[in-house]
Amino acid sequence: MKGTMKGYGVVVPFKEFGLIEAEVPVCGPLDAIAQPVVMATCSSDPHQVHAGLPAGLILGHEVVARIVETGSMVKDYKAGDVVAVGAVTPDWLKIEGQDNLHQHAGGQNYGMNWCVFENGTFAEYFRIRQVDQNAARIPNGLTYEHALMTGDMVTTGFHGVELAHVTWGDTVVVMGIGPVGLMAVAGAALRGAGKIIAIGNRPNTMRLAKEYGATDVLNYKDGPIDEQVQELLGGGQPDSCIATGGTNDTFARCLKMVKPNGYVTNLQAQTFDTEIPADYTLAWCAHKHLNGGLCPGGRRRLERLMAIMAAGRLDPTKMITHRFHGFEHVMDAYALMDAYPKNDEVIKPIIYFE
Amino acid sequence: MKGTMKGYGVVVPFKEFGLIEAEVPVCGPLDAIAQPVVMATCSSDPHQVHAGLPAGLILGHEVVARIVETGSMVKDYKAGDVVAVGAVTPDWLKIEGQDNLHQHAGGQNYGMNWCVFENGTFAEYFRIRQVDQNAARIPNGLTYEHALMTGDMVTTGFHGVELAHVTWGDTVVVMGIGPVGLMAVAGAALRGAGKIIAIGNRPNTMRLAKEYGATDVLNYKDGPIDEQVQELLGGGQPDSCIATGGTNDTFARCLKMVKPNGYVTNLQAQTFDTEIPADYTLAWCAHKHLNGGLCPGGRRRLERLMAIMAAGRLDPTKMITHRFHGFEHVMDAYALMDAYPKNDEVIKPIIYFE
Amino acid sequence: MKGTMKGYGVVVPFKEFGLIEAEVPVCGPLDAIAQPVVMATCSSDPHQVHAGLPAGLILGHEVVARIVETGSMVKDYKAGDVVAVGAVTPDWLKIEGQDNLHQHAGGQNYGMNWCVFENGTFAEYFRIRQVDQNAARIPNGLTYEHALMTGDMVTTGFHGVELAHVTWGDTVVVMGIGPVGLMAVAGAALRGAGKIIAIGNRPNTMRLAKEYGATDVLNYKDGPIDEQVQELLGGGQPDSCIATGGTNDTFARCLKMVKPNGYVTNLQAQTFDTEIPADYTLAWCAHKHLNGGLCPGGRRRLERLMAIMAAGRLDPTKMITHRFHGFEHVMDAYALMDAYPKNDEVIKPIIYFE
Amino acid sequence: MKGTMKGYGVVVPFKEFGLIEAEVPVCGPLDAIAQPVVMATCSSDPHQVHAGLPAGLILGHEVVARIVETGSMVKDYKAGDVVAVGAVTPDWLKIEGQDNLHQHAGGQNYGMNWCVFENGTFAEYFRIRQVDQNAARIPNGLTYEHALMTGDMVTTGFHGVELAHVTWGDTVVVMGIGPVGLMAVAGAALRGAGKIIAIGNRPNTMRLAKEYGATDVLNYKDGPIDEQVQELLGGGQPDSCIATGGTNDTFARCLKMVKPNGYVTNLQAQTFDTEIPADYTLAWCAHKHLNGGLCPGGRRRLERLMAIMAAGRLDPTKMITHRFHGFEHVMDAYALMDAYPKNDEVIKPIIYFE
Repeated sequence: MKGTMKGYGVVVPFKEFGLIEAEVPVCGPLDAIAQPVVMATCSSDPHQVHAGLPAGLILGHEVVARIVETGSMVKDYKAGDVVAVGAVTPDWLKIEGQDNLHQHAGGQNYGMNWCVFENGTFAEYFRIRQVDQNAARIPNGLTYEHALMTGDMVTTGFHGVELAHVTWGDTVVVMGIGPVGLMAVAGAALRGAGKIIAIGNRPNTMRLAKEYGATDVLNYKDGPIDEQVQELLGGGQPDSCIATGGTNDTFARCLKMVKPNGYVTNLQAQTFDTEIPADYTLAWCAHKHLNGGLCPGGRRRLERLMAIMAAGRLDPTKMITHRFHGFEHVMDAYALMDAYPKNDEVIKPIIYFE
Repeated sequence: MKGTMKGYGVVVPFKEFGLIEAEVPVCGPLDAIAQPVVMATCSSDPHQVHAGLPAGLILGHEVVARIVETGSMVKDYKAGDVVAVGAVTPDWLKIEGQDNLHQHAGGQNYGMNWCVFENGTFAEYFRIRQVDQNAARIPNGLTYEHALMTGDMVTTGFHGVELAHVTWGDTVVVMGIGPVGLMAVAGAALRGAGKIIAIGNRPNTMRLAKEYGATDVLNYKDGPIDEQVQELLGGGQPDSCIATGGTNDTFARCLKMVKPNGYVTNLQAQTFDTEIPADYTLAWCAHKHLNGGLCPGGRRRLERLMAIMAAGRLDPTKMITHRFHGFEHVMDAYALMDAYPKNDEVIKPIIYFE
Repeated sequence: MKGTMKGYGVVVPFKEFGLIEAEVPVCGPLDAIAQPVVMATCSSDPHQVHAGLPAGLILGHEVVARIVETGSMVKDYKAGDVVAVGAVTPDWLKIEGQDNLHQHAGGQNYGMNWCVFENGTFAEYFRIRQVDQNAARIPNGLTYEHALMTGDMVTTGFHGVELAHVTWGDTVVVMGIGPVGLMAVAGAALRGAGKIIAIGNRPNTMRLAKEYGATDVLNYKDGPIDEQVQELLGGGQPDSCIATGGTNDTFARCLKMVKPNGYVTNLQAQTFDTEIPADYTLAWCAHKHLNGGLCPGGRRRLERLMAIMAAGRLDPTKMITHRFHGFEHVMDAYALMDAYPKNDEVIKPIIYFE
Repeated sequence: MKGTMKGYGVVVPFKEFGLIEAEVPVCGPLDAIAQPVVMATCSSDPHQVHAGLPAGLILGHEVVARIVETGSMVKDYKAGDVVAVGAVTPDWLKIEGQDNLHQHAGGQNYGMNWCVFENGTFAEYFRIRQVDQNAARIPNGLTYEHALMTGDMVTTGFHGVELAHVTWGDTVVVMGIGPVGLMAVAGAALRGAGKIIAIGNRPNTMRLAKEYGATDVLNYKDGPIDEQVQELLGGGQPDSCIATGGTNDTFARCLKMVKPNGYVTNLQAQTFDTEIPADYTLAWCAHKHLNGGLCPGGRRRLERLMAIMAAGRLDPTKMITHRFHGFEHVMDAYALMDAYPKNDEVIKPIIYFE
């Protein structure tokens, strides 16, 4: 395929998102070229605009795709197939992946190809790198909407649970319950956590957190989060905290409140520096573990997460609050994510291409 | 306390279970003496009789206990407290536990004190070794019956899931769905398994397996289990198998069917030797992992498992099929477990002391 | 490249190894075609002949290679480069590898390409699958001989140590001290084991085991190995056993002697069935872990193992007992491995191509 | 035993270390009372004085002890036994230890009993909490000096290696090569690291770092450590960094230089807050893991570490630079640790009680 196409992305760095024109991407031997079937906007879309990504870059990384062309070495897919695909599409030939971290194989964040190293999925056509390795068929019984939620929201929220080492009977704090936080709640429940304490502010996310398995919901506006949690636990300490939003203060308080040998996982794409008072970690003597990281991608990850849904254990589509029809409504869905403070109703807007 | 008491145990080795008289146990400084509030019989009770344990040994290891006396160094409990307690009551001062395996601290199976190293809990009085470390308070909202199921059935079934390394989206086979197998099903669901394939025979356990999260239920009488599973999976291989019952043949077939790098966990108290054809494991080249082990005990284990129930994620009391009132009904509950083939209805009989 | 070439392999299945003629392999876009610089014979070469591999198959899987042609997508290597390469050359595009077991990505043992799925390296030309991913440069300070020992002997022996979960202060039994067993000894030392008990028979391997870090050396002809080890340990139990040779009896005795929660790892390419008496594992109640598996391959594995050598912590070339010069001496080196009982002096024969 | 005794500790908080008089400690049923045979001073001794610990507190936590009295429940030791004992003497009956972190069982740092919760070991008599669980016999072939180095220097340095997840072929940076850093170097070598880059300043520690396994030694005075390491590695990134000394700047630079999915472990008893620029961790997207923690204690830990020495794989006594004879020389050994900048020769001073 050749020629130009329409897409939505950075028109003016730091300022404006809108319609742009770009070259149709070239299909390598292991790749596919695909069209969107249904897309979602993400809070990181406006972040990327405001962070100054270059003009002319098409954004978008949450998509269910219809394949239109495949490379010469592709074996499992053909034009016409509709597939789930992750926000992270690693290069499985990079050798750092042999050390078991595909997200950064090829360099820091190199697995996050779209919107960083090439145009994203708010486009008439986009490239799926190594399609046999990075796309997955959608299991019987699941809808495109299940698949759409898998590639970023579910895998990211669940990765928080992995990094926080949640296990049976743990008391887990989830700080921030936008869609990633909600999926961290659901993931903690699917690791057999005991108490799951969700910390948010908006009524609809607080209600949904309970549906996904939170035992307790706190409002960060009601006081310092560590003090609220401590009171709820009668002086006890949580086993882990997963931060999907907040400030340096809330993040540092996670370290303060977590038990010795506990984990604090940072999933927010934070822009601020980290500052942690020495006594919050007992000068790092208390075995408090701090980590964070980009979500896992790849076909097996998608297959595994959708297998959980196919077994009836998870329904991420409850988070979808707005459904648009028509490619041009990417603009509306973007506007919903860009508004601050967010509309009380918005959790996850999606756009059907047609 | 001094004197004699009544209990139920081995009257004639290999042959007869019944009423016996024994000395009231002595309370050490870290221990408690307790009475049963509610007990359960276990399939291992008749196993122990038929295996030839000595005459005069009181059996029983599933109990909710009322403390009647505490040792001089006990801090957290006092007479009158009703507590959950595990079938395994480790000696936390044995140094092998410092290598992280409390079940065998002090020697092979030394954590399994009752019925092996001293009289069990089908007794007017029994000793709880290191009560601060081995008993747990029952959380608000849970009944004695939840607590009773925790100490052996839940901890054992869930341990199978731990040993099988079940993780998100795994396909898990549970071979044998008596109460331990049912809790392995529930535990796999609480680790986020995808397909859970339960293999049983009796309609009530097959129905309950579905309630606890099995996606598929097979009957081992319908053909070799590996062939049935392979057909169900369209030629695929499960990630792990948890065997809670069966023969050497079914066990070996678990090794045959499991994927390379998969786990086969043996929870049956098997009496037969293990024989595995070389090609089932590709002569051990295929990274098939085989293990098994006595369930974890201790207070934190009980607290963690009951925290899952308190959060509303698990209800093991659905397995209770018979409720007796009066100590003497230990005989009836034992008879239900000893019958072969088992009464179609029996899963778990319990006996209230009064 | 086209045409025919010479190689050494199966002339008569079950019976005869010798010179054969074959097609020069075809280079795929990610592959390289290479010539041997130096080769080693392995005890598995005669095993493969005697196991009935088909006539016309070229054997050989331990090699340092000179690249003569590279595929169109190869980035890191070019004709003339001399590289280390593993016996296992995984296909990194197979999705099972995303679940972290590259040896079996694509199917059971699919990583073991040479001699199973295509001609091996006792050939004038052989294919290196995915050369950027499966070959490694030889670090400054190391010789071709270091590199040659890395691809099978070091990676296999060290994999035994990984599968046996050896950690600081462990008591480790290595049953069988041919070259893989010797590298298991060296690997255990490089994991900080305490006592390492090597069990062999031939004086030169027993001496070398001590050089590689064994604290004690036993002769399996002096009595049942579990009894010898128990006596040496004053009744104690080893933390793990790595079996690189022996019979079902010695293997089963490893399970008997290992401590509860210990590991028994099987690295022998055994042809016999496994039979384990019930009481050796306390009917699998004692948390005895049994596993085994094909060695890891891939470029990072080679780089990591050679980094240990470059740091001066390991010298596997001490195992080389015979050096031949000239391709035709593959026959002599094979004969040394095929002899039974083995020549007292033979540990590892190598053949320089020229 | 009763009465008063002499010891060395805090005379004037923040200011003065010296001779004090205190009550002889009381022996609980699981405990022992012991006398020092040989002691070491530690850089944390002056830290504790300058941090304002209360007047009258006896300091000291590195000791080989002669038991003079045992409690009624002690089984393995008796008066006259000379034992190794760790700086951390956990309370093995605290239930948090059942979650596998004995250092903080009973509360944050509760395992660090001496000098925090009761008088330390620079005393005529001190209590060993739970002596069967916390003291170890010294193996044949080792000296008191080996045992003395085990309880803090070896276990702490090796714990850094554990927390940093060092594995075969890793490139490891050890920032700060006082005795803990030197033991981190030795521990990394005993985990099979490849390059070990030691960063120090004093010639004698830089020389000793090489003896313990460092492949490269850098001086932090020669430029920013991340830039020096990057240059040494030709632009590469280390797999992990273990910080045993330095400032917030050096610590933050460890996070900057470590590879994605790498570990930074903090073993310095730092008094400053932690400040990490957002881009050093790619806003926590790069899977950089940060941790730290008090060293493990307990009898098995001591036994395991001394088993490594008994096998001839480690000699920590090379770090001993000064040997005093007579209890009163605790003052001199303290002065050596308190001097700033430290005497070029001082690594580890020890004091024989007699």
